[in-house]
Amino acid sequence: MSGIKRPTEKHLMLCTGRAFPELAEEVAELLGVDLVPTRQVTYANSEIYVRFEESVRGADAFVIQSHPAPVNEWLMEQLIMIDALKRASAKRITVVSPFYPYGRQDKKHAGREPISARLVADLYKTAGADRLMSVDLHAAQIQGFFDGPVDHLFSIPVLADYVASKYPSKNMTVVSPDAGRVKLADNWSDRLGLPLAIIHKRRDPNKANEVAVGEVVGDVQGRVCLLVDDMIDTAGTICQAAAALRDHGASAVIAAATHPILSGPAAQRLNASAFEEVIVTNTLPIRDDLVIPKLTVLSIAPLLAKAIQEVFVDGSVTSLFGGVE
Amino acid sequence: MSGIKRPTEKHLMLCTGRAFPELAEEVAELLGVDLVPTRQVTYANSEIYVRFEESVRGADAFVIQSHPAPVNEWLMEQLIMIDALKRASAKRITVVSPFYPYGRQDKKHAGREPISARLVADLYKTAGADRLMSVDLHAAQIQGFFDGPVDHLFSIPVLADYVASKYPSKNMTVVSPDAGRVKLADNWSDRLGLPLAIIHKRRDPNKANEVAVGEVVGDVQGRVCLLVDDMIDTAGTICQAAAALRDHGASAVIAAATHPILSGPAAQRLNASAFEEVIVTNTLPIRDDLVIPKLTVLSIAPLLAKAIQEVFVDGSVTSLFGGVE
Amino acid sequence: MSGIKRPTEKHLMLCTGRAFPELAEEVAELLGVDLVPTRQVTYANSEIYVRFEESVRGADAFVIQSHPAPVNEWLMEQLIMIDALKRASAKRITVVSPFYPYGRQDKKHAGREPISARLVADLYKTAGADRLMSVDLHAAQIQGFFDGPVDHLFSIPVLADYVASKYPSKNMTVVSPDAGRVKLADNWSDRLGLPLAIIHKRRDPNKANEVAVGEVVGDVQGRVCLLVDDMIDTAGTICQAAAALRDHGASAVIAAATHPILSGPAAQRLNASAFEEVIVTNTLPIRDDLVIPKLTVLSIAPLLAKAIQEVFVDGSVTSLFGGVE
Amino acid sequence: MSGIKRPTEKHLMLCTGRAFPELAEEVAELLGVDLVPTRQVTYANSEIYVRFEESVRGADAFVIQSHPAPVNEWLMEQLIMIDALKRASAKRITVVSPFYPYGRQDKKHAGREPISARLVADLYKTAGADRLMSVDLHAAQIQGFFDGPVDHLFSIPVLADYVASKYPSKNMTVVSPDAGRVKLADNWSDRLGLPLAIIHKRRDPNKANEVAVGEVVGDVQGRVCLLVDDMIDTAGTICQAAAALRDHGASAVIAAATHPILSGPAAQRLNASAFEEVIVTNTLPIRDDLVIPKLTVLSIAPLLAKAIQEVFVDGSVTSLFGGVE
Amino acid sequence: MSGIKRPTEKHLMLCTGRAFPELAEEVAELLGVDLVPTRQVTYANSEIYVRFEESVRGADAFVIQSHPAPVNEWLMEQLIMIDALKRASAKRITVVSPFYPYGRQDKKHAGREPISARLVADLYKTAGADRLMSVDLHAAQIQGFFDGPVDHLFSIPVLADYVASKYPSKNMTVVSPDAGRVKLADNWSDRLGLPLAIIHKRRDPNKANEVAVGEVVGDVQGRVCLLVDDMIDTAGTICQAAAALRDHGASAVIAAATHPILSGPAAQRLNASAFEEVIVTNTLPIRDDLVIPKLTVLSIAPLLAKAIQEVFVDGSVTSLFGGVE
Amino acid sequence: MSGIKRPTEKHLMLCTGRAFPELAEEVAELLGVDLVPTRQVTYANSEIYVRFEESVRGADAFVIQSHPAPVNEWLMEQLIMIDALKRASAKRITVVSPFYPYGRQDKKHAGREPISARLVADLYKTAGADRLMSVDLHAAQIQGFFDGPVDHLFSIPVLADYVASKYPSKNMTVVSPDAGRVKLADNWSDRLGLPLAIIHKRRDPNKANEVAVGEVVGDVQGRVCLLVDDMIDTAGTICQAAAALRDHGASAVIAAATHPILSGPAAQRLNASAFEEVIVTNTLPIRDDLVIPKLTVLSIAPLLAKAIQEVFVDGSVTSLFGGVE
Repeated sequence: MSGIKRPTEKHLMLCTGRAFPELAEEVAELLGVDLVPTRQVTYANSEIYVRFEESVRGADAFVIQSHPAPVNEWLMEQLIMIDALKRASAKRITVVSPFYPYGRQDKKHAGREPISARLVADLYKTAGADRLMSVDLHAAQIQGFFDGPVDHLFSIPVLADYVASKYPSKNMTVVSPDAGRVKLADNWSDRLGLPLAIIHKRRDPNKANEVAVGEVVGDVQGRVCLLVDDMIDTAGTICQAAAALRDHGASAVIAAATHPILSGPAAQRLNASAFEEVIVTNTLPIRDDLVIPKLTVLSIAPLLAKAIQEVFVDGSVTSLFGGVE
Repeated sequence: MSGIKRPTEKHLMLCTGRAFPELAEEVAELLGVDLVPTRQVTYANSEIYVRFEESVRGADAFVIQSHPAPVNEWLMEQLIMIDALKRASAKRITVVSPFYPYGRQDKKHAGREPISARLVADLYKTAGADRLMSVDLHAAQIQGFFDGPVDHLFSIPVLADYVASKYPSKNMTVVSPDAGRVKLADNWSDRLGLPLAIIHKRRDPNKANEVAVGEVVGDVQGRVCLLVDDMIDTAGTICQAAAALRDHGASAVIAAATHPILSGPAAQRLNASAFEEVIVTNTLPIRDDLVIPKLTVLSIAPLLAKAIQEVFVDGSVTSLFGGVE
Repeated sequence: MSGIKRPTEKHLMLCTGRAFPELAEEVAELLGVDLVPTRQVTYANSEIYVRFEESVRGADAFVIQSHPAPVNEWLMEQLIMIDALKRASAKRITVVSPFYPYGRQDKKHAGREPISARLVADLYKTAGADRLMSVDLHAAQIQGFFDGPVDHLFSIPVLADYVASKYPSKNMTVVSPDAGRVKLADNWSDRLGLPLAIIHKRRDPNKANEVAVGEVVGDVQGRVCLLVDDMIDTAGTICQAAAALRDHGASAVIAAATHPILSGPAAQRLNASAFEEVIVTNTLPIRDDLVIPKLTVLSIAPLLAKAIQEVFVDGSVTSLFGGVE
Repeated sequence: MSGIKRPTEKHLMLCTGRAFPELAEEVAELLGVDLVPTRQVTYANSEIYVRFEESVRGADAFVIQSHPAPVNEWLMEQLIMIDALKRASAKRITVVSPFYPYGRQDKKHAGREPISARLVADLYKTAGADRLMSVDLHAAQIQGFFDGPVDHLFSIPVLADYVASKYPSKNMTVVSPDAGRVKLADNWSDRLGLPLAIIHKRRDPNKANEVAVGEVVGDVQGRVCLLVDDMIDTAGTICQAAAALRDHGASAVIAAATHPILSGPAAQRLNASAFEEVIVTNTLPIRDDLVIPKLTVLSIAPLLAKAIQEVFVDGSVTSLFGGVE
Repeated sequence: MSGIKRPTEKHLMLCTGRAFPELAEEVAELLGVDLVPTRQVTYANSEIYVRFEESVRGADAFVIQSHPAPVNEWLMEQLIMIDALKRASAKRITVVSPFYPYGRQDKKHAGREPISARLVADLYKTAGADRLMSVDLHAAQIQGFFDGPVDHLFSIPVLADYVASKYPSKNMTVVSPDAGRVKLADNWSDRLGLPLAIIHKRRDPNKANEVAVGEVVGDVQGRVCLLVDDMIDTAGTICQAAAALRDHGASAVIAAATHPILSGPAAQRLNASAFEEVIVTNTLPIRDDLVIPKLTVLSIAPLLAKAIQEVFVDGSVTSLFGGVE
Repeated sequence: MSGIKRPTEKHLMLCTGRAFPELAEEVAELLGVDLVPTRQVTYANSEIYVRFEESVRGADAFVIQSHPAPVNEWLMEQLIMIDALKRASAKRITVVSPFYPYGRQDKKHAGREPISARLVADLYKTAGADRLMSVDLHAAQIQGFFDGPVDHLFSIPVLADYVASKYPSKNMTVVSPDAGRVKLADNWSDRLGLPLAIIHKRRDPNKANEVAVGEVVGDVQGRVCLLVDDMIDTAGTICQAAAALRDHGASAVIAAATHPILSGPAAQRLNASAFEEVIVTNTLPIRDDLVIPKLTVLSIAPLLAKAIQEVFVDGSVTSLFGGVE
């Protein structure tokens, strides 16, 4: 037969953007690999330049990028990295975006709005991504925005184990800070065997411009309230919820959330809040200038490293979560 | 200049599948048009044949199909109709699926599952659909599954006006039958200015196989409870919720839901249930053999007709819902 | 160099839909593998749910489905299985549809018809199929409907060897039941070295609504006639052909066809027919309630198994047919 | 409302390649338009350059090209014209290829062959074609190769009317020159109410390299035989068929075919043949150096002009053929 | 015939991003339209939100955005606007990017680099753009990066008319600042009938790290030198060129360039430079804090307005440039 | 676990078109492989037929084709080969086109022109190409026309080493024959450390139809001039340049160019020219009937062989050029 034959090798390569290289480095160390040496420059006119300084032909490449502010910079940097990998003949490209950018714009809330979360999925695909890995998507349906395999990881084992180890559960209630997060609170309730309450913003339809009042639905009197959310952005909703819970007799309030966006007045609000502790992961870096003593940050890197390993060896990511992928 | 010029005309044409032609006929009558005469046959071997018996070249075609059981038949019939329109040079094809098929499989709940709702969107696109119109998607994110414009219509004005006109609101509470529908209940609460409660299924994590108990979170004692959902399938959850509400002292229980799937034991359960009235729309046909005296069916046809009209004349569908599309 | 290297493995996995699992099991046994354990449910509202109960990451997956009535069910089930495999990171997905659904709608016979056979190819592609394998396509051009490799298998070696071993060829004539199947009859004629005849339906153009009469073109007097076709659906054409051949003096009539659709009155007609034997394969299951004593069913599983093996090991499917693929 | 509104006009524009401009000119004259002035050059190194010398923005453009030898030249010229129209903002581009190039390579006859007819459809699509118009495709399934509307025109009304007006039908038999064209002969038989015969090449399977002998299946003794085919290429098959028919006692032999490829020894063979008349259309130009006295060429331009007109005004092409498109 | 007919209207709508609304307003005024009222917000976490506050159904929409620093912000805003227009059923979407972002990364200068200019074209397409309009692309080949019509506008008539009206041509030489811009200088030379010179950076291959010296190739002694370039970024190259020209005896040096990026030290360098005047257009806004007395800014708005008008009415953009598009 | 596992092998296979098989054979010999035996026929009607006579399943296939006149033939043959490989389940298909066809039509020079170089890239992709390899693209931006990896090879090491070994550099000047090739001349100047000159065609804008005069910009008096270009087509420009250089006192003139198109009067012009030697590579075959004594042809095969080897083993093509890909 004509031609030459050679056994095939798979080659895991880990690349990182500049938004939060410390996370990628932690993942790399856990996997026992070096990050691909990469030249990344932002030119004077703000355009980004990328070059990989080692051959990536045939690589099973993972492109880790975090998406804190300025999110558009980091997204474009990641797209440019994907394009460079594609054109340099990487065999398979997996986007690893622990915090999925624009996840909240996952539907049209009103007419003539974009669905930016779908747009982001399409931009990844267009640049050349074959697969996507993310943690705690704002809506699980975002999995369906990407035309290809999505590894949807959950931080709840990380967060809940910490809560369970530190706080006794017998007097605790899980609380959803609004109507949109009740499903998440339900998952926590299931996992820890706790009762549920929700904060419900009720508007008087006859008084159009009046501010809605947060009602507490469920029993919180004398209980330790665990507010859960997928992200803490400006911390307005969750801090108001904490106050409402204290007003309704909660004995203590703690919070657990995956993504610490912590933008604008978040630090100030959390510091002034009724929370005893606010537990997050490091899917996003926390700015050095933010001082939030009650904030506890748990690392998501071990979860990412395990998932990347399973993907590389054709194992099961589902198995990392006891069967639920 | 070479060539011939002619003024351009738009030509609205309405086509219907065989699942529920009465709905399409009602829409056609409201728009003042005839349905496109169509030959549709299911051959002996169960393959479906379609032929439009009038030229559809250049048409702005709307393909109305309902998706009761057997849903795969009606979906394939609709895809085949779209293919025939595309190959017959229709200019624009809008899928009108009042009940979006496979809407509940909108994410992977476990590993190695399909995301059938995205698959359906892609099948429509592949067959040749340019646009999509649907009512009360199970998750609004399904809008983002389709690569093109989606007109997402809401039945809440139809249902809520009926409820408001028939039941006094002062003693009423909106109840979500489980944690997944709280956002919908919140919309009802907003629109009618009512308090909220939810039924919460709580499992004891130490007793793996024990059946979850439905707790009522919120105050329902002595109140008229309005259970809201997007669909009633086998009616199990909603009838259990009704019973739980009566057990907790509700003075009466009614239900409002958009899509009357009513499969399997639904009729029997509803007839045996604590409900005083169950209000639905006709996004799906109700089988003639089902006798459910407490069921009220409101027509969705006027909403569909208005939306089709707005789409045809390049008006605003958003405006049909007071600015929220 | 950065990264981890591992030798790559190929992993053949065989999945089956629920239409005819016995065929897939026979193929699996011949290949010496187990079918991928799969959970497949049809919900009360007729939607289909699928989940693979074992990791399929990196698999070279073959999705075997048969397409008897209700064909749309089985097609949708197969599409949903493909979607699940794609999203679960299978490496390559080959559709194995021994009887290609909607193969007869392979062109527009009249204006404003669909080309459903192309639509089916596109649906497979959209769901995620990389390759297609089928037996005796109604028109070989259907290979060109799929944008990717198609393994087109032929049952003629299976059927013809049986005929040759049982019937002496010296007095036999191959007969095409109508003008559309003459090419197939020609292949049989070539393989067995037999003369050819055709049944020709001739209409009088001056008598529009008159039924066409079947003329026998060619010499059949005193000969054993072998009617060949790709499928037997309602068996109308082929039974009329058999009668016409007996009327023209055929000494005996037998039939050979690949796909036993056998819908509607087929069993009754075959039982009442002039045939001595009707030989088919099991590309489609035969309903248990059909009793057709003169029907002989030959298994297609060995051919499928051999072809799947060749595809998996990058061998040659063409070689299975003496060089003609 | 913001913006400017203007009524929309459609603008039919007719472009032609250089393979057979006389046909396009005839079509243009029938439609009452001028061809778009176009600069087309073949450079010294054989690359083709095209430029339209008039604005084609917003045009409903039809790109007429014939495909005689050298077919690859004319195909590339047409693709380049389509690309230029697309980039110049033509609104809709319809390919008009009266003889579809590579139509005979419509399936894999053997392993590792291309399906060039599908490739051509994809090349047209990629270059920017929205629609396709062709006459008497070698296989009607080629319609399904193109992802968009195909107007498949038939020359049989043109050819058959001529035959019917010139030859009495009462003593005539339609003959298919081989097993692959019987369906076409059947259409002629239907239209003219004539009996059918076929020439069948039979090989002795025990004598591998022996030339097949053409048997005449059906009755031709003393009859006027009308051989029909879609194309006449080297004229080998059809001239052998004519000879065989005369050997079997045919009183006269004529031929009707759509596409006069007439390559290689065709002219010589036809001139030396038993044919009384050979009737073709001008879907392909006939080289000036070919002198074939018995050849009659009927113009296809009126059919093309009518079809283009129907497409432009959103009429019905189907209606041109009495309902069969 | 079934259905409703209406005459079709075209509806030009002009949208603008927030990077340089003054340019869009100038274009709108010249066209006599209002910009589409649009809500654009950058959230605290830096994600961008867009909503059009008027129906855009059926619109022929033009999305004007300028791309100064931070270019990734403005690019993402534009993509999000396009996505919103697509989902709101705009009929045709034309991207108007006077300065094409990432135009300089139009090829791989070294291995494992991206081709960001192609990526940008693909991102526009993916978001939903049908057409593209830009001024003086860094390489004209970028037209070929976009899969659709591109209107490539040239500022040379604007710039050259100004130069010609202010400076006598008889003593002038056009100078290219490096080897990559000679083609542009040649266009100026052609238009104004002037001789050409170039600055050539020559390296000594034996002295690897030595800085290249700018040689002047051509005659500049005692002449007015017009340095031309497509953009002025940090102004390093062009200011060095000016100095070199003065060193070689140029009597005066002026510069003309389309895109005033003016990043980093540009203002300082230009102010310290040998230039008498530097002439640019306003394809990019000039930051208020930059004070560059010798800078002359000519408006590109009239050119954009004329081109948009031609596109809208299906006229000819080519004609704006005397036949060269 | 279900299924069968096997180690994976890569299989390099080399295919060649008929335009210049000697080049492919030279590459094959250098790689130590045989070319895939292939049947290629041009039928009497000029259609091309291709069949690979050995299984190519799973192959890493390279399709080498040269593109001399008639370029459209060879391009179509290559597309058909790619289609056949795709349908025969080749795993990866790399187009190797040493001279990229239609590379000069890489942008619209005027309105309503095609961008044929982009069209060619899309045709390759559509046919099934995954990757592209070429030598000295007319514009490096053509890399960005192909949606996938492009290996852009440079002949300058081959050509420049020859020049450096034969001609002393101390008295040499690199000359660009027109304004469009200065960047290439600059690369030569860099590599060999030589000064630069250009031939500039200057038109008098007041005399529209007058022929432009070639000015020599830069110093050539008494120097050996090395004219460089990417291709020599009709040799008009370069021979005029040579004459102009001699007129301006050049002591000798030689030329180096990658692609010897040599069409039309090229041979005659070169033979009559002032050149001492003209050095090219064999990216294109040189017609046997051309006798050009001063032509030196260097083989590009070693470069192609090395690049194919690097691609196959996932090495670095960049490294072949000292880090610049």
